[in-house]
Amino acid sequence: MRLLLINPNTTPAITDRVLAVARAAASPGVRLAAVTGRFGGRYIADRATYAIAGHAALDALASYPGRYDAVVLACFGDPGLLALKEVCPRPVVGMAEASLALAITLGRRVALVTGGEAWVPMLEEFVAAQGLSHRLAAVLAVAPTGADIARDPEGSLALLAEAVSDAVQRCGADVVVLGGAGLAGLAAPLAARVAVPVLDSVVCAIRMAEAVAGQPRGHRPGHRGGVKSTETVGLSAPLRDFLRRR
Amino acid sequence: MRLLLINPNTTPAITDRVLAVARAAASPGVRLAAVTGRFGGRYIADRATYAIAGHAALDALASYPGRYDAVVLACFGDPGLLALKEVCPRPVVGMAEASLALAITLGRRVALVTGGEAWVPMLEEFVAAQGLSHRLAAVLAVAPTGADIARDPEGSLALLAEAVSDAVQRCGADVVVLGGAGLAGLAAPLAARVAVPVLDSVVCAIRMAEAVAGQPRGHRPGHRGGVKSTETVGLSAPLRDFLRRR
Amino acid sequence: MRLLLINPNTTPAITDRVLAVARAAASPGVRLAAVTGRFGGRYIADRATYAIAGHAALDALASYPGRYDAVVLACFGDPGLLALKEVCPRPVVGMAEASLALAITLGRRVALVTGGEAWVPMLEEFVAAQGLSHRLAAVLAVAPTGADIARDPEGSLALLAEAVSDAVQRCGADVVVLGGAGLAGLAAPLAARVAVPVLDSVVCAIRMAEAVAGQPRGHRPGHRGGVKSTETVGLSAPLRDFLRRR
Amino acid sequence: MRLLLINPNTTPAITDRVLAVARAAASPGVRLAAVTGRFGGRYIADRATYAIAGHAALDALASYPGRYDAVVLACFGDPGLLALKEVCPRPVVGMAEASLALAITLGRRVALVTGGEAWVPMLEEFVAAQGLSHRLAAVLAVAPTGADIARDPEGSLALLAEAVSDAVQRCGADVVVLGGAGLAGLAAPLAARVAVPVLDSVVCAIRMAEAVAGQPRGHRPGHRGGVKSTETVGLSAPLRDFLRRR
Amino acid sequence: MRLLLINPNTTPAITDRVLAVARAAASPGVRLAAVTGRFGGRYIADRATYAIAGHAALDALASYPGRYDAVVLACFGDPGLLALKEVCPRPVVGMAEASLALAITLGRRVALVTGGEAWVPMLEEFVAAQGLSHRLAAVLAVAPTGADIARDPEGSLALLAEAVSDAVQRCGADVVVLGGAGLAGLAAPLAARVAVPVLDSVVCAIRMAEAVAGQPRGHRPGHRGGVKSTETVGLSAPLRDFLRRR
Amino acid sequence: MRLLLINPNTTPAITDRVLAVARAAASPGVRLAAVTGRFGGRYIADRATYAIAGHAALDALASYPGRYDAVVLACFGDPGLLALKEVCPRPVVGMAEASLALAITLGRRVALVTGGEAWVPMLEEFVAAQGLSHRLAAVLAVAPTGADIARDPEGSLALLAEAVSDAVQRCGADVVVLGGAGLAGLAAPLAARVAVPVLDSVVCAIRMAEAVAGQPRGHRPGHRGGVKSTETVGLSAPLRDFLRRR
Repeated sequence: MRLLLINPNTTPAITDRVLAVARAAASPGVRLAAVTGRFGGRYIADRATYAIAGHAALDALASYPGRYDAVVLACFGDPGLLALKEVCPRPVVGMAEASLALAITLGRRVALVTGGEAWVPMLEEFVAAQGLSHRLAAVLAVAPTGADIARDPEGSLALLAEAVSDAVQRCGADVVVLGGAGLAGLAAPLAARVAVPVLDSVVCAIRMAEAVAGQPRGHRPGHRGGVKSTETVGLSAPLRDFLRRR
Repeated sequence: MRLLLINPNTTPAITDRVLAVARAAASPGVRLAAVTGRFGGRYIADRATYAIAGHAALDALASYPGRYDAVVLACFGDPGLLALKEVCPRPVVGMAEASLALAITLGRRVALVTGGEAWVPMLEEFVAAQGLSHRLAAVLAVAPTGADIARDPEGSLALLAEAVSDAVQRCGADVVVLGGAGLAGLAAPLAARVAVPVLDSVVCAIRMAEAVAGQPRGHRPGHRGGVKSTETVGLSAPLRDFLRRR
Repeated sequence: MRLLLINPNTTPAITDRVLAVARAAASPGVRLAAVTGRFGGRYIADRATYAIAGHAALDALASYPGRYDAVVLACFGDPGLLALKEVCPRPVVGMAEASLALAITLGRRVALVTGGEAWVPMLEEFVAAQGLSHRLAAVLAVAPTGADIARDPEGSLALLAEAVSDAVQRCGADVVVLGGAGLAGLAAPLAARVAVPVLDSVVCAIRMAEAVAGQPRGHRPGHRGGVKSTETVGLSAPLRDFLRRR
Repeated sequence: MRLLLINPNTTPAITDRVLAVARAAASPGVRLAAVTGRFGGRYIADRATYAIAGHAALDALASYPGRYDAVVLACFGDPGLLALKEVCPRPVVGMAEASLALAITLGRRVALVTGGEAWVPMLEEFVAAQGLSHRLAAVLAVAPTGADIARDPEGSLALLAEAVSDAVQRCGADVVVLGGAGLAGLAAPLAARVAVPVLDSVVCAIRMAEAVAGQPRGHRPGHRGGVKSTETVGLSAPLRDFLRRR
Repeated sequence: MRLLLINPNTTPAITDRVLAVARAAASPGVRLAAVTGRFGGRYIADRATYAIAGHAALDALASYPGRYDAVVLACFGDPGLLALKEVCPRPVVGMAEASLALAITLGRRVALVTGGEAWVPMLEEFVAAQGLSHRLAAVLAVAPTGADIARDPEGSLALLAEAVSDAVQRCGADVVVLGGAGLAGLAAPLAARVAVPVLDSVVCAIRMAEAVAGQPRGHRPGHRGGVKSTETVGLSAPLRDFLRRR
Repeated sequence: MRLLLINPNTTPAITDRVLAVARAAASPGVRLAAVTGRFGGRYIADRATYAIAGHAALDALASYPGRYDAVVLACFGDPGLLALKEVCPRPVVGMAEASLALAITLGRRVALVTGGEAWVPMLEEFVAAQGLSHRLAAVLAVAPTGADIARDPEGSLALLAEAVSDAVQRCGADVVVLGGAGLAGLAAPLAARVAVPVLDSVVCAIRMAEAVAGQPRGHRPGHRGGVKSTETVGLSAPLRDFLRRR
């Protein structure tokens, strides 16, 4: 099985980090490849870079020359998720989408803990758009962004531990997701501090991608209205061709 | 990895059927065991046998002497799911719960198709209790129960195909779950008739059980209020001991 | 009019207590009988004993030889409620169901106060399943279970008074239900401390049972799918016959 | 026990009809009195007369010189219900409110059937404002208003039977409420045509008023903000005094 | 363009105040007229006077002899709004309705701040009835009523500033509406204290009335059921004729 | 007052058309300018071009050198709306957002009618994300896209008339919005066929932009988390500078 990871953050170091965590989590025999967005925010942490990332993720998918059985959109918050699902001939799972799907089988009320406060309303809206608000205990963010945390994981542990405790004690979560590439690998030390499961969003995404990779794909939702070919201007050649060719 | 399947229907032939489909779906290296409920309905198809099945599932879990990494509650509709999660030291996934979690990553609006009309309100209530009503396109049931379908799968295909088409065309589903042990193995022939994925609930359950088996378990929700030991009367010795020992 | 009380807790002393409060609350001419669950938790205070109680309540109903005009399921939280309604030829009201129905005519936002913290999520889910979450101010539980409170009502009054005040002042309830047989008879002393109605769940159940006893019954929801007879194994003879005879 | 019926329709013949049905439904020992609105629509069948009826119901309550243990607002749709509850020293139940409270203990999904099509959105909004939309199967209205039906009950039976069947077969109701004074007494002939309970809204209101009459009243919601006395202009002397005197 | 303001509070000084603020806010060329309710509360601050105000607003509309292109119901909370929309041949906007419509284009989560604590549940219910609860951050009220604030605006500024800060900091509002004629003109001083827009409900109502005045009117919702003429008793001659004439 | 229209469709002829309709709708003294997206779909009609359009709209805003008092995002469905609101120093209204805000003051249940079937789920999700699902009667699309309709308005009138009638008769809408630049100018002929208001989305957007242009702006939602400057790669120079400069 081959999984393609798309990191719409434009920082290759983050792609490398996600890939490393993903490799450790993947089942034997699963091969991973990853691509990085060619334009947009260094680290997506507001609505503007999030909007641009939807375009960048499509561009990255269209530009990837290899084969894959499923795609992981490796930015927690899943910019461009539905557009990718529309155009991609294989199953696509977003990192936040996959974490939620897995978390709701482990607990009744899920908390998302991430870095960067601007993500709070954005993730609340994402969960609502997923129709999962009834299962959400809270979205909590520490002040450092995921990029900051990735640069200094040890330095953020105390803040994150406080957020995780808060999620459980004050917000009533019985499962916590650590969201974002920057927080990958921190689930184990944080889990020791609370009495509920603490999940790593990269691990969840790999698990769910493996679970859906073998599933039937059927026709694609976006094709309902008969979309076959879209004329565009000003896009990269691969994306232009990708959208025209459908 | 070892998975334990609990079939709260009291018909061993159904357990065998689920186990066969599960074996075909499981990843290499996954070992499966299955237990059958000792009391209750031959095939759960109404609220009374559903209520009894919650007890029977607990009894079956407590009576199982072996080891396991995760449990699959192998009755679509998941009687006793939360009670099993409360008492079990390992992750438990229900067949309907797992199918929903997987289906919402493959489509926006999920239809459940099953056998036995009494299941329709019961499954609608289950989806609502899961907080997933916003993702539900419809619950549709053909008149024959899952037991009837298991006895004569070919004879039910036309009815089921009609329900699946109805789910997609009239109800707007873009992913369909075939729910129930009795319908196991029918996804492939039915998928050919519609342009959306058609999922097998047994396959989904195995996929999700594998996905959560390695996840951290943490403390258990039911232990919040400090439940440690429960005095009971009139239960089987294993269940009595299981509940007392906590 | 004859009302049958089913106490799925397996402690006869609790049945006696409920019956005594019920007798004081019943209108002239109403005759009461009560049966106790034959198996399950001494006092239902977690999901496992709750699940078993659904079976026990069915068993108790099937085993009762007398006549009745309506049934009261006398455990606050109503284990097995819908299954009882499905199989019973007369109206069935649950103690929590009845309390909610009555409370919403006396206030806009209802608080449930009970004993045993494991009940909090269970009752929140029950209210949601009843479609009444919009009328719920809060579910609050004191640490002692209903069984503890029944043994020492005076000793729990201060804790309960705090919970009732909290329900009103902090949660904005304008009507409070004291839920559970263990709290029966405590409404009067507690009502003196707050400016809103404080209802006794046993009294509410009797009131509502009297109100629906004379109502038309019609066919039963469970019979929609054409349920007529259910084959079972391993049940008590009365329950086996009860389910087969339908 | 004394119950006061307030009919905010300004047609005394309707008051008489409601009172007759109510007398037949009331328990032994319950004494009934009724007052008619002094101004407003002959028969409330649109939003304008509904709005005026809220005022008229308050005026009627304030003008009633006798004693009572509970009040029934005897117009299905309950104009002025919350205002009456605010100012009245005794419990007040509305005919639609009471019917819903009773119906949800007899079925999972309630249909309201009434006369006059303008009532459909008004009743849908009433149910939503009650927080009970999740239990509503449908609101169905026949073209003749309640006043028309009251004048010729036989002539409307076929239309109503069709609406009741529609509620059950097409909308999935498992309990039907015949709403409105004009439809009082028609439940019995209509119930024969469907397999679910058909309830009379006047009977429901009397049942619920009896159930709440003995309940503790506590302080009144409207008094939260410290309302003690309200200065008004241009009202009837009894209403002016009633509002000032609080 | 001519706008008619209906103040269902029966205090002409409040009408004058609203009219003055409205004049300052209206676009060039917009002519304003205002009428005051002839009966009911001096200042609407509870459910009883709110209910009466629905009648008074209809009476005021029917009594106004002039021409108008749109109507502003100038009491925040909009008593009688749907009845006015039903009977009026021109667009009608309520002050709370208009403020919400405008606020949701300026922020994601709206707080309403007003005077008089009894308004809190009433406005929460109004927002819910508008289907806008998902956009509501909070309804906050200071103890003085709008009438009190109108008499001494300076004296209430500190209390209101605290409520506005609370709305933003604690409740997460990103836009605040100052609701009520009594608070008109206070938006500017209060806006200086928080980092989000603070809107004046009178200004919002004028803006929205101008926006809808030129829009097509179509048939009126209330006319769906074929309402043409309504017989009434005991109303003022203009209202009687207005309702009969439809 | 100056309004800036951003058309994220990359077809200048559509920009011209929107501008012409907008000019006819704008109040005296309002000056309009318009910019066209530099990259993306010729006409946005699926999720992929919608996602790209969010980026293109930001790029267009950043590239506009002139002054403005408010911005209209002139693509019905509002791609990039929240990102524009986050970064723009002036109020931004989307064409769909504005149409909804205005429509809910003219009717209780709004239907959106547009061109291109892929828009149906996209607009349903947009309405849900706006928290306005409770006011939505339906989203209906005719098969021709807005671009097709713009090329041949007369040829689409019959199809659109059918959709509008369907919205009213079958879906219960009491106000209809014609969404999209391609449908601009068609409201008048279509309104003649139904008894409810039919609104033009361009007109609504201009009306609402005028209404909010004068309103206080406050700090911007996106700035909550302290976003000040965002480092990006691969963007146009104006957008790069725009995001860095914040």
